[in-house]
Amino acid sequence: MAVPGEPTIIPILARPASAAAAEQGRTCGGDDVAIDLDGLFPHSEEIIRRTVRSFEDALIDIWASSGDAAKPREAAEVGLDVPAGPRELADVVSELRRHMLPACLNTTHPGCVAHMDTLPTLAAAVCESITASLNNNMLFAELSPAFTTMERELLRWFAARFRLPDGAGGTMTSGGSLANLLAVLLARHRFDPAVRESGWTHGDRAVVLASDAVHASIPKAVMALGMGRQALVKVRSDAEGRLSIDALAEALRKLPREGRRGFMVVAVAGTTVTGATDDLSAIGRLCREHGVWFHVDAAYGGAVVFSAKHRPLLTGIELADSITFNPQKWMYVPKAAAMLLVRRPELLAEAVGVRMPYSNGSPFNFGDLSLQGTRPVDVLKVWLNLQLLGLSGIESLIDHTMSLGRHFAERVERSVEFELVSRGDLNICCFQPRDPAADPQAVRKRFLDRQGCLLSLPTFRGRRLLRAVLLNPRLTFEHIDRWLAG
Amino acid sequence: MAVPGEPTIIPILARPASAAAAEQGRTCGGDDVAIDLDGLFPHSEEIIRRTVRSFEDALIDIWASSGDAAKPREAAEVGLDVPAGPRELADVVSELRRHMLPACLNTTHPGCVAHMDTLPTLAAAVCESITASLNNNMLFAELSPAFTTMERELLRWFAARFRLPDGAGGTMTSGGSLANLLAVLLARHRFDPAVRESGWTHGDRAVVLASDAVHASIPKAVMALGMGRQALVKVRSDAEGRLSIDALAEALRKLPREGRRGFMVVAVAGTTVTGATDDLSAIGRLCREHGVWFHVDAAYGGAVVFSAKHRPLLTGIELADSITFNPQKWMYVPKAAAMLLVRRPELLAEAVGVRMPYSNGSPFNFGDLSLQGTRPVDVLKVWLNLQLLGLSGIESLIDHTMSLGRHFAERVERSVEFELVSRGDLNICCFQPRDPAADPQAVRKRFLDRQGCLLSLPTFRGRRLLRAVLLNPRLTFEHIDRWLAG
Repeated sequence: MAVPGEPTIIPILARPASAAAAEQGRTCGGDDVAIDLDGLFPHSEEIIRRTVRSFEDALIDIWASSGDAAKPREAAEVGLDVPAGPRELADVVSELRRHMLPACLNTTHPGCVAHMDTLPTLAAAVCESITASLNNNMLFAELSPAFTTMERELLRWFAARFRLPDGAGGTMTSGGSLANLLAVLLARHRFDPAVRESGWTHGDRAVVLASDAVHASIPKAVMALGMGRQALVKVRSDAEGRLSIDALAEALRKLPREGRRGFMVVAVAGTTVTGATDDLSAIGRLCREHGVWFHVDAAYGGAVVFSAKHRPLLTGIELADSITFNPQKWMYVPKAAAMLLVRRPELLAEAVGVRMPYSNGSPFNFGDLSLQGTRPVDVLKVWLNLQLLGLSGIESLIDHTMSLGRHFAERVERSVEFELVSRGDLNICCFQPRDPAADPQAVRKRFLDRQGCLLSLPTFRGRRLLRAVLLNPRLTFEHIDRWLAG
Repeated sequence: MAVPGEPTIIPILARPASAAAAEQGRTCGGDDVAIDLDGLFPHSEEIIRRTVRSFEDALIDIWASSGDAAKPREAAEVGLDVPAGPRELADVVSELRRHMLPACLNTTHPGCVAHMDTLPTLAAAVCESITASLNNNMLFAELSPAFTTMERELLRWFAARFRLPDGAGGTMTSGGSLANLLAVLLARHRFDPAVRESGWTHGDRAVVLASDAVHASIPKAVMALGMGRQALVKVRSDAEGRLSIDALAEALRKLPREGRRGFMVVAVAGTTVTGATDDLSAIGRLCREHGVWFHVDAAYGGAVVFSAKHRPLLTGIELADSITFNPQKWMYVPKAAAMLLVRRPELLAEAVGVRMPYSNGSPFNFGDLSLQGTRPVDVLKVWLNLQLLGLSGIESLIDHTMSLGRHFAERVERSVEFELVSRGDLNICCFQPRDPAADPQAVRKRFLDRQGCLLSLPTFRGRRLLRAVLLNPRLTFEHIDRWLAG
């Protein structure tokens, strides 16, 4: 089957000609315990359509959102007992609708602006039923022939968007934290390939530098990778969370005098709290000068690469050795959909590849490039959104939601009750009551109860802030005006 | 909102009363570039139903499987170009059906027996459209209130199935490799909590012991975690891949005489190639005796815990400090659905928890227990299958597919062409041509071309084997007889 140099292609297999005849025993188990195989694993068009339609009303509950905000329910009402025997699908879906959905966060609601968790396009959400039915595995190309090609090509395409050179690629990961973990592992490997065999031997004499506003996954990665958290040097950031270039330059100069060496700098394009974007050109130049791995965590902000108007924010990202980017955020793809893009992807196999005896020997397998083994197909929904939206559609969504963010910030600035703490560089606004005695928790509750608007309450520079992430494209200026009118 | 000690519950938010009035601007972008927000992010029942039904025929392609095995297509035929502007959903789905699906592996086909990648129940696959629409995040309880409760409770329930003591729990992970990585990290932390701050300082004087048939994720974990692959001691296994108890006992005795110490043993319930299951009681007793962390990788074989007939294979698993178990394999749940169960789950937060300033302060967050941050909801489809099948249904599926495995092995044993190399302990059979000159690759191709049966070709003890994993409950004895009749 294998074509040298190409992934092995295995087609959708036809059912054996005599399958119909062979299929007696449509139930399995003893006489008293029978399982409806035709219902659970159907071949018939009618049952397939019926199963799909069982879930339609639940989707309408979510998207047409008939929930009642005034009556939060306890999730404990949901029946978590496992029954002794089979139940009807209709009953289970009805329980899901009555008891579980009302206790869920509904990200399709325009008032759901608390976090970087957006609604996806409905088509991308429904497409997950296709992905899940195929149940292909990104571990080996033979288990996911079409999707291995698709993921490889689209990663190259994304790398080109960020103006990484030809040959750049990478791997998708089940979330941005895993992409960041892999980036630190890669930088460690470039710094000292012997760690793979001999373990970490540098104590705190080799360090990763990152701003004090960096995502929690970076200290977690340094710790997990056996370097210890002492091997992370935190560099000062400004009032909105942008890494101080002076402080970074000083740290890189000072370390060798202490017998230490920085081997990696992590910059951020869109910090988690304020959406601040670092000066990537200046950081990239410092990294080149000092021979240090340059990683950009663009999990959130990377999406502005699709906007002619806003992409200058990312100038300098083309100097990166690696980039974390999550379509699961601002590209309206359901989670998980994250990626690590790498200037020299061949380093990934060097750093993490191990022999997998159960492979049939396809020449290219994503499992060789990842800490994950069996991995679901996340690329199909990314492809679907790219096709549905096209470049101009993505640009429109980015520009539109950036303008919502600007409107929110302007509205806060004109408010008598609140002051703007940070508008970041993106569509995220942090603000606080002008009255120092006001309780941010109580304000948050008021926004939710009266306006149906769910804010988050992050801690930043020791203060509790109110924060809005303006991602939902169906939000209007009028929603925002109403929320902030009190 | 927060009830102390309980996850914060946030309901499906109602749309603000005046939302309808506020919703002008159903497109965004300039006059020349307009995005159909009503179509992409619909509120109307009609559009929601239309979107769901756009994918129905693609689901029928997969489940009623009209593909043509004789004509493998190149995945390159799929259009990976990203268009300049939006496309119609119907056109994109039509391209998916015509060009992409025929190049995919179809796990619903009864002949697809190559790997541990099974078909899921159709209901669990379709349910992914619900999960993806809600797009809840397992990072914080406030972002996934119902699902945080559900995952926590079901993990306790699974832990109880394996007869871990009260208080046992854990976390779901996006695949078994990540569960194994977390287990090694946990054992490392129990051995030396100072590694978290100071990094690995033990060189190869502290080691993990695992059989030479252990899954590739274990050497990968030891390497990634900064201990170096030298810190993995491989222990001999028998002809079918079962860890030698004598060799393990000897290694544990010998290490201290060399100034080394084993701090973890990894046992396997269902090795990847042969499905061999280690003697968990004997290994567990040795671990207790030597004060060593006992991890069981039951990613595959753990499912037999649901069968009265086959669960004795797992006797001794109740001694484990941690267990990897993947419902994404033998429980017919689409991937990813994997978990790490831990006797003392409080160790997880100690080992990997870091401060997350953007959290609103829910008392329990899965993000504190995991290397993953943003994580999709994998538990809903596990819940759905448990409800649909019930305990007796799962037991029937396990027992039925075990009997398919036994039948396959007996049929190989009676065959003139093949000999059985290993029947493992589960529903996996490894065999080879009796004629030493026969090429396993050619035999594999013949099975696929003539019988529509896709086998895998793992390497084991230096030999290329043919391997069948008999997971599909719609397989019949007749299919197997026909395949092996040649």
